[in-house]
Amino acid sequence: MYAAGDVRVIDVPEPELIEPTDALVRITHSCICGSDLHPYHSLPDTPDGQSMGHEALGMVADVGEGVSSLQAGDFVIVPFAISCGHCEFCRAGLHTSCSNGGFWNDARIGTGGLQAQAARVPLADGTLVKVPGVDPDSADQGLLASLLTLSDVYGTGWHAAATAGVRAGDTVAVIGDGAVGLLAVLSAKQLGAERVVLMGRHRDRTDLGRDFGATDVVENRGKEGIAEVRDLTQGGAIRVLEAVGHLPAYEQALGVVRPGGVISRVGVPQYREGPIGWSLFGKNATLTGGPAPVRAYIEHLLPAVLDGTVQPGRVFDRTIGIEEVPAGYEAMDKREALKVMVRP
Amino acid sequence: MYAAGDVRVIDVPEPELIEPTDALVRITHSCICGSDLHPYHSLPDTPDGQSMGHEALGMVADVGEGVSSLQAGDFVIVPFAISCGHCEFCRAGLHTSCSNGGFWNDARIGTGGLQAQAARVPLADGTLVKVPGVDPDSADQGLLASLLTLSDVYGTGWHAAATAGVRAGDTVAVIGDGAVGLLAVLSAKQLGAERVVLMGRHRDRTDLGRDFGATDVVENRGKEGIAEVRDLTQGGAIRVLEAVGHLPAYEQALGVVRPGGVISRVGVPQYREGPIGWSLFGKNATLTGGPAPVRAYIEHLLPAVLDGTVQPGRVFDRTIGIEEVPAGYEAMDKREALKVMVRP
Repeated sequence: MYAAGDVRVIDVPEPELIEPTDALVRITHSCICGSDLHPYHSLPDTPDGQSMGHEALGMVADVGEGVSSLQAGDFVIVPFAISCGHCEFCRAGLHTSCSNGGFWNDARIGTGGLQAQAARVPLADGTLVKVPGVDPDSADQGLLASLLTLSDVYGTGWHAAATAGVRAGDTVAVIGDGAVGLLAVLSAKQLGAERVVLMGRHRDRTDLGRDFGATDVVENRGKEGIAEVRDLTQGGAIRVLEAVGHLPAYEQALGVVRPGGVISRVGVPQYREGPIGWSLFGKNATLTGGPAPVRAYIEHLLPAVLDGTVQPGRVFDRTIGIEEVPAGYEAMDKREALKVMVRP
Repeated sequence: MYAAGDVRVIDVPEPELIEPTDALVRITHSCICGSDLHPYHSLPDTPDGQSMGHEALGMVADVGEGVSSLQAGDFVIVPFAISCGHCEFCRAGLHTSCSNGGFWNDARIGTGGLQAQAARVPLADGTLVKVPGVDPDSADQGLLASLLTLSDVYGTGWHAAATAGVRAGDTVAVIGDGAVGLLAVLSAKQLGAERVVLMGRHRDRTDLGRDFGATDVVENRGKEGIAEVRDLTQGGAIRVLEAVGHLPAYEQALGVVRPGGVISRVGVPQYREGPIGWSLFGKNATLTGGPAPVRAYIEHLLPAVLDGTVQPGRVFDRTIGIEEVPAGYEAMDKREALKVMVRP
């Protein structure tokens, strides 16, 4: 990406093993994230370009001599954060704060983006999750799509619901009908939510949200939307999952949260400051969430994906080749596609 | 209070029973709160004046016919919020969000302030807590002072520690060396905190903080203070209790909270907006707290107060009569007194 709206597919040098703890992964599946649309709207001119993408499945092609749990030929999930697996934060399940890790397309640790054909994966033992028994060439496409969501959007939706403390019988409001919002609906339902109010205005998406467990859909936003949710929930939802990242979505969350309730944000905030005075404090509401440590959730979420109990991969509604990535961004930006899979 | 800095003692009509659920209380002990200093600094000209005070002990003088648990002659703690005790929020321990309650000096429910000789207490069964076996005329002055803290500052410090989730072995930072901050130190210690770093610059107060259990004191503020706490705690405190209410105190909290940690605010925010973008989100920090439902904590905290295990009343360092209340505000504002008790 060279500027807002300017995505190009270029040839770059093949990644190579650098550290003994690295793996090289041939990417079989990647995708475009709602969070990729933030720079797609706002990236200043960047003459050297910015490598994009942070969600992938792939085959391990080679490993450094310090890698002990993986070998060439393993099929792996590549989470959106790189993590060592053994520092204080990884042990606490907060892999996105790993003391030794980082993110994709980070010059400091020499990573590229995952909308690519191959990647160098630092700290491979800690970062990658092997999926035994699945061959990407022959496996069911729906299963592969669902596995791909474990690299980010499903784990992120789960993080929203889990950090909000969703439990049996809860009333939950989910703000945003993008892939993360819809998977926050699914996650809330898995955690036992009785009532899930989805705030979104794209009928095809909210219909999928109903399939995932939403009991109510509110199309209105702003004051009207808040009033509608408060009315539906007799005074507000005890858990509010904010899956957008723009300030109005946070303000929406603040409006619909019940006294003593929790707002969990997983959309990357596109703002620095927001209302946290009496509006949040007065009702003893809690604001939590952050970049999802999806690595912490994969083993927990994997069985229901593998046995088909849940099908988070239904958020993908378009598949493209790597050359079509610029068109993929455009389709997601225009809301013509919910989430675009890339087969490099 | 008629304007910032303008506090007057005036005669007002005796309060009377209005609702059958009311009690009349003759106030034996009241006090001035750090939060009273906020309007003392900022109240616009208010020709009719604003009745002040929200913490008291007193003797029940009369009760309405709907009051079942109290009678004339009972010695009671008067919490800073009025609560019914049976609505959804009171049952959840969130008495400050009571569906039927309110606060002192609230025209909507006809309450005055408690820096007064008597008060009409609505919803007396839900609001007041009887203290059997204590006679305010003969009881130990230290015990009475400690009981008075249960009406607000001790319960508020406890709320900070409890909502932050302080547990055995934790490292806790407390921001502010006012009465609430010092009692947040005491509360954190009671909840098992191993290390308690108190941020404050008034030596007599921080010395009391050390008596209450602070293991470290940091006098610096701003970047230097943050660096010092992060250094002392190897990267930040997992629980941060913010007991001031000004924006720099929140920013301080944001600076010292460890990734995955919790900031609990109990100082009433004197700001509407604050930094909650990547600065809070990026480290998956949680922001919680609010007006303390002290009513929910009194029974739990009372035994250790009655048997002298804890002496939260040590925060009082001056006692005055009702005519001296204006001077009491001035003394607290000038930091000549930590907390002023009023004997009406």
